Amino acid sequence: MELLKKRILEEGEVIEPNILKVDRFLNHQIDVALYVEIGKELANRFKDKKIDKILTVEASGIALACFCSNALNQQPVVYAKKDDSKIISENTYSHPVHSFTKNKTSNIRVDKKFFSEDENILIIDDFLANGQASLGLASIVNQAKANVVGIGIVVEKGFQQGRSLLEKEGYKVESLAIIDHFENGKVIFR
Amino acid sequence: MELLKKRILEEGEVIEPNILKVDRFLNHQIDVALYVEIGKELANRFKDKKIDKILTVEASGIALACFCSNALNQQPVVYAKKDDSKIISENTYSHPVHSFTKNKTSNIRVDKKFFSEDENILIIDDFLANGQASLGLASIVNQAKANVVGIGIVVEKGFQQGRSLLEKEGYKVESLAIIDHFENGKVIFR
Repeated sequence: MELLKKRILEEGEVIEPNILKVDRFLNHQIDVALYVEIGKELANRFKDKKIDKILTVEASGIALACFCSNALNQQPVVYAKKDDSKIISENTYSHPVHSFTKNKTSNIRVDKKFFSEDENILIIDDFLANGQASLGLASIVNQAKANVVGIGIVVEKGFQQGRSLLEKEGYKVESLAIIDHFENGKVIFR
Repeated sequence: MELLKKRILEEGEVIEPNILKVDRFLNHQIDVALYVEIGKELANRFKDKKIDKILTVEASGIALACFCSNALNQQPVVYAKKDDSKIISENTYSHPVHSFTKNKTSNIRVDKKFFSEDENILIIDDFLANGQASLGLASIVNQAKANVVGIGIVVEKGFQQGRSLLEKEGYKVESLAIIDHFENGKVIFR
């Protein structure tokens, strides 16, 4: 997606060797016009699939998944929760996910009532790096005996193992921008 | 907003004396068509105001704020973060906010670069109860010497002190559904 790559080149910042900061338009401040276009492009990548629901994880995946849904048929979006809350029931599918950028492991959880056997679930997330979040979401879909239609990602770090782990499980992965590597603090796309 | 009230009556569940669970359409599973309408109605309540940016707090506020922005002029949405992350700089405005439903206090934070003096900021959140989240967001706007245009809320618990605390500070509060009280496990709107 050229519009997204342009914004990453113009406004992304490489901090630490392997961290890309895109907080000016993607995951702290949101450029809503860009989000609408990202939603359309994610929808476009999966437009031939039967999709009953979209699954993502809080926080930064939620609005992206919603705009993708809005560009498809407004399918329900379910987001896995990271925190303990009185609101969520005990009756959940869950999976531990380690976040590298937050340096902590959260048990992501989805209330069992939201997925039925054989439903077709599209997974959406903002970043794909080591694949832990997407694998956790796919595990939740599998626990529900539902089907993973595919995994739509906004920014993929192509030099990490996420994609190969997901493809090894048979999942179709579509990323709107794939970073091949960082070079002197610059982003080089594949 | 009648459509929202109808959904709360049909699908909301009162758990514990004072907690309303709306996870089937608002804050775990999302009805995207409803979110679009909520965004339009929030936009409508503030359509005569000059709005430069919209501020909310992760996680459940983000998509609501985005659809509100999309129904206005696609102003940037900034969301305050609750977690420590390597991505966020040290250079933040912050405020402690206690969540009753999660029974924990988080320091909500916004990178200082996102607000300039005298910018006009609309605050959006899903729930207003004791007002702690909205007061924390307003504090962040004030720390930046920006202006709070108003506070748009989806569901207000009218029997708690949130609105009076916010109005005492001079903020305009608009809620799409105001719960007067709960009666035998049913929601009674004001």
